[in-house]
Amino acid sequence: MSSAVKIYDTTLRDGTQGEGISFSVTDKLLITEKLDQFGVDYIEGGFPGSNPRDITYFQEVRKLKLKHAKLAAFGSTRRAGIKASEDAQLKTLLDSDTPVVTIVGKTSTLHVTEILRTTLEENLAMIEDSVSYLVSQGREVIYDAEHFFDGYKLDPDYAFKTLAAVLRGGASNLTLCDTNGGTLVDDFKSIIARVVKEFGGDKVGVHCHNDSGLGVALTLAGIDAGAVLVQGTANGYGERTGNANLFTVLPSLFLKMNRTANCAKNLHELRELSLYFDELANLKPDTKAPYIGASAFAHKGGLHANAAQKVKSSYEHIDPSLVGNHTRVLVSDMAGRSSIAMKARELGFAIDEKDPAMKTLIDELKELEFRGYEFEAADASLKLLMSRALGQAKSFFEVEGYRVSVERRGSDTVSEATVKLKINGESLHTVAECTGPVGALDKALRLALENIYPQLKQLELRDYKVRILDSRAGANARTRVFIESGDGKDIWGTVGVSDNIIDASWEALTDAINYKLLQA
Amino acid sequence: MSSAVKIYDTTLRDGTQGEGISFSVTDKLLITEKLDQFGVDYIEGGFPGSNPRDITYFQEVRKLKLKHAKLAAFGSTRRAGIKASEDAQLKTLLDSDTPVVTIVGKTSTLHVTEILRTTLEENLAMIEDSVSYLVSQGREVIYDAEHFFDGYKLDPDYAFKTLAAVLRGGASNLTLCDTNGGTLVDDFKSIIARVVKEFGGDKVGVHCHNDSGLGVALTLAGIDAGAVLVQGTANGYGERTGNANLFTVLPSLFLKMNRTANCAKNLHELRELSLYFDELANLKPDTKAPYIGASAFAHKGGLHANAAQKVKSSYEHIDPSLVGNHTRVLVSDMAGRSSIAMKARELGFAIDEKDPAMKTLIDELKELEFRGYEFEAADASLKLLMSRALGQAKSFFEVEGYRVSVERRGSDTVSEATVKLKINGESLHTVAECTGPVGALDKALRLALENIYPQLKQLELRDYKVRILDSRAGANARTRVFIESGDGKDIWGTVGVSDNIIDASWEALTDAINYKLLQA
Repeated sequence: MSSAVKIYDTTLRDGTQGEGISFSVTDKLLITEKLDQFGVDYIEGGFPGSNPRDITYFQEVRKLKLKHAKLAAFGSTRRAGIKASEDAQLKTLLDSDTPVVTIVGKTSTLHVTEILRTTLEENLAMIEDSVSYLVSQGREVIYDAEHFFDGYKLDPDYAFKTLAAVLRGGASNLTLCDTNGGTLVDDFKSIIARVVKEFGGDKVGVHCHNDSGLGVALTLAGIDAGAVLVQGTANGYGERTGNANLFTVLPSLFLKMNRTANCAKNLHELRELSLYFDELANLKPDTKAPYIGASAFAHKGGLHANAAQKVKSSYEHIDPSLVGNHTRVLVSDMAGRSSIAMKARELGFAIDEKDPAMKTLIDELKELEFRGYEFEAADASLKLLMSRALGQAKSFFEVEGYRVSVERRGSDTVSEATVKLKINGESLHTVAECTGPVGALDKALRLALENIYPQLKQLELRDYKVRILDSRAGANARTRVFIESGDGKDIWGTVGVSDNIIDASWEALTDAINYKLLQA
Repeated sequence: MSSAVKIYDTTLRDGTQGEGISFSVTDKLLITEKLDQFGVDYIEGGFPGSNPRDITYFQEVRKLKLKHAKLAAFGSTRRAGIKASEDAQLKTLLDSDTPVVTIVGKTSTLHVTEILRTTLEENLAMIEDSVSYLVSQGREVIYDAEHFFDGYKLDPDYAFKTLAAVLRGGASNLTLCDTNGGTLVDDFKSIIARVVKEFGGDKVGVHCHNDSGLGVALTLAGIDAGAVLVQGTANGYGERTGNANLFTVLPSLFLKMNRTANCAKNLHELRELSLYFDELANLKPDTKAPYIGASAFAHKGGLHANAAQKVKSSYEHIDPSLVGNHTRVLVSDMAGRSSIAMKARELGFAIDEKDPAMKTLIDELKELEFRGYEFEAADASLKLLMSRALGQAKSFFEVEGYRVSVERRGSDTVSEATVKLKINGESLHTVAECTGPVGALDKALRLALENIYPQLKQLELRDYKVRILDSRAGANARTRVFIESGDGKDIWGTVGVSDNIIDASWEALTDAINYKLLQA
C-alpha cells in the first residue's frame, strides 16, 4: 500500500512572484479549473491583501464548481498590537470566502525583532490569535512557517514555540518553509524529523525553493522524513530561482517513492499540463525539464540510441508514457512514417503508410518543421498541407497580393489594408481600416470573400498568438503566428511562419479561411 | 581546514551530447583555455574514437599552455576477444596524447549480457586489461563505472568485482556514474558510502545526471559520503535533462559544505563564466539558474523587497557578490513605496520615499501596469518614465509621425517605413526598406538620427519579443513588445504596449534610442 500525501499548488500565489510571470484574472480562473481537473488537493489562489487583481479573482472563482480541490487564500498573521478581529488584512482573507486560509508567520527571532520590530512574545500571540480567529470563522487554516530552517538554527526552542502556538490556535497543518532556499538536504531532513517527532507526522508540510538547485531534493527529503503535504508550483515558477517544481516532484513520489495522492491517477497528463501552463504564462517550455521536457527521453549518442533499442530500459529511468512523454531518437528526429499515416487517417485521408505519396508528405513536413512550423496545435494547417501533398487540394481563391500600412500622425494610429484576390477569373480588390494591421487584413479579406462564400460570416477569430523563434536576430527574427478560429460549431488552429510578422499572420489567417471553406 | 576535492569538467564531451549543443574546434579550444584559467583540475576534451572533430581538437590543443588543468581523452574499454594493444579505439586515445585517459566500462550484468553480448568474466578482463595497458603507456587513468547504481542494485557483488578489476589495472580514480539519472538521494548516498568503505575514500568520484531533477543533490550527497572528485558540466549541459550543473555544485561545496578546490579562489568569476559558455553555445542564459542567474537575487514582492532592505541576509541565502552576481529589485504591482524608491535610487535618482514626487511616480506606474506594461525586464523604459515623472526628462527628438507598409506581390513581400521627426526645430523625413515592418522602422529612425547623434551607430537590437496580452480578443488584442538593446558595453531593456503591434514596437524602439542618448 502506498501512503497518501496532499498536493498543495501555489502557482497562482508564490508562482506569480517569479520574474516575468503575470496572470490575468481570466488566466487564473482557467488555471484553477485545470488544476482541479488534474486533481491537486489545494489550490492557493492569491494574496488578496496585497493586490486588487486577486480580490477580483476570489469574487469570480466562486462561480466555478470545483470537483475536488479546496481553494486557499493566502495572507499573514495579524499586525502587532491589535486584535485579530480588527485586522484589515485578515478581514480581506475572510472576505475571500475560501474554505481554506493559509497564513504565514515568523519563526526566526532575527526577523521578529529586526523586520517585524516587535517582541518575541507578541509574535507568538499574533500567530495563535490569527489562527484561532480564522478557525472560529469556520476556516481550515494552514500555517506557513517562514524561514523555518534558518530560524530553527538560530533558536530551536523559539522555533518550536511558534509551532506550538499554531497548534493551540487550531491549524490543520504546519508547513515548514525554506524561504531563502539555502538549506542543504541533510540539515533539512533532520530538522523535519525533529518536528515530526515533536508534533506528530500527520500535520507537517514542506515548502521549498530552488536557490541551491535543491528544490526537488529537499521536498522529497521532507516526505521521506515524514511530511504529508507538499507545496510547489507548476514548472517550478516562483521568485528568484523558483519554487520546488511540482511536475518533477510528483513522478518521483508516485513512481519511485511509493507515495500516492488524489492526482496520481492523472500522472499521464503531466506533460500536457506543463505545456498548458507555459502557454498561459507565455514561456518557452523548458526542453530539459525532468520527466516531461521534450528532451527528457531524447537520445543523441549513437551508442545510447542503439542500446536503448536493444534494452528499452537501458538508458531510460522510467517509461516515458507514464508522464505523457515519449522517446525520441534525434538522428531521425521526426515522427515515424506510421504515426504520420495515422494522423492523416485521423484527418480524413484514406492513405496507408506504404503509399508512395507518403514520402512527399514526410519530406514536406520535415522541411517545414525545420523552418519553425509546429503542427501540434494547428490541425487545420496540417490538413491543408496534407491535401496539397496528396494532390487533393481545392482552391477557393487566389491571392494576387496585399498591402497593409500603419500610420501615426501625432497620437493617432490607424491601420489600412488592401487585398487583391482572384476568384473564378474575376479580380476582387478591397480595402479596410482597423486598429491593428492584422485586424485590417482580416476585414479586407472578408469584404472580398463574404459575398461569394457567405458561410464565412460565421467565422470568428478566437485567439491570436505570436512567438519569436530566434529572438536574437532582432526585429527581423523568424516569427510563428498561431490563430484559433471557430464558427460556433467547431474550433480549429492554423499556423504561419515568416521573417515578417505580417506575412506569418497572413498565412495563418488565409489557412483559417481555407479550412472553413473546405469544411462547408 | 576545508578538505579538498577535484573538479572534473566534461562539458566538451558529455555536455555536447545535449540537444542543440554543438561546439566547433575553435569553440572547444577557447573553452579549454577558459576552464584552465578558472582553475578546474581536469578537462575532458572529447571522445576521439567517436568523431573526427575531436581528433582535430586533440591535435590542436597541444599548442595551448595550460596552467593547471590536466587534459583527458574519453573512450571505452577494449572490445571483447582482442588484446588491449590491438584495439583501434584505445589506440586513438593514446594518439590523443593527453596526460589523462578516462574510460567507461560496464557495471551492470544486464548490460554486459544484453548490450555488449559477452560474458561477465570477459567484461572484467576487458576492464583490467584496458586500464593496465593505458597505465603502462604512462597515462593517468580515470574509470567511469557506467550505470553503477542500477548495476549495484541488480548484483552488488559483480559491481564490486568490476571496481576491483579497475584498481588491479592501476587506475587513479573510480567514478561512479548514475547514467540514467534515475537514482534517488538516499540510495545514492548509501551505495557511495559502501564503495568508500570497501575501496578507500581517496579515489572515488561521482558523475550524475538530472533526469529526476536531482543532479546537484546527488553530487553533493556523493561528496558528503566521501567522494573526492566531481564530474559535471558548465550550466548543466548534457544529454536528455543534462548533467550535474557544476556552476550550482561549486558554490554549495565552497560556501556551504566546507570543501575547497583549486578553482575556489575564482568563485567570484562564476556568473561571467556561465554567460561565456551560453554565448559560445548560442543559448539564452537561464535567468532562474541557482546562484548565477539574473533572477537568482531578484526581489519582486513588496514584503520581501522591504525586508531585504532592513536585513540584507533576510531573503538571500548567500552574498551574491561571492559568485559575481548582485541583488535586483523588480518593480511590479505588488511593489510598495519603499521598493520603488529603492529602485529609483538604483537607477540614479536622488529621491527618498517621502518625496511628494513619489506619489506621481507610483500612480503612473500603477496605471501603466494596469494597461499591461511590465518593467521588470525593462529598466531603461522605467528610467525614462521616472525621469518624466520627476520632471527631469530630456527631449532628443520629437516624433511627428511614422508610416509603415507591408506589401506582397505574388510571393515577394517587402516592408517600407517612413519616419518624420523634428530636432531643434528642423524637420527630418526619412524612408527605409527591410524584411519586416519593425526592421524597416528601425532603419528609418537611424537614418534620421545617426548624423546628429553618431553614438547611435553603436546601438544594436539584441532581442525582440512579442506577447499578446489578451489573445482572446483576436487580431486586435493588446500587445506588449520587449526589446533588448546593447552598445557593446551595456545592455538594456525597453517595453511598449498597444492594441497595435507596430505602435507597441515603435514605443519600445524609441525608448531604446532615448535611453542610449540619455547615457551618452
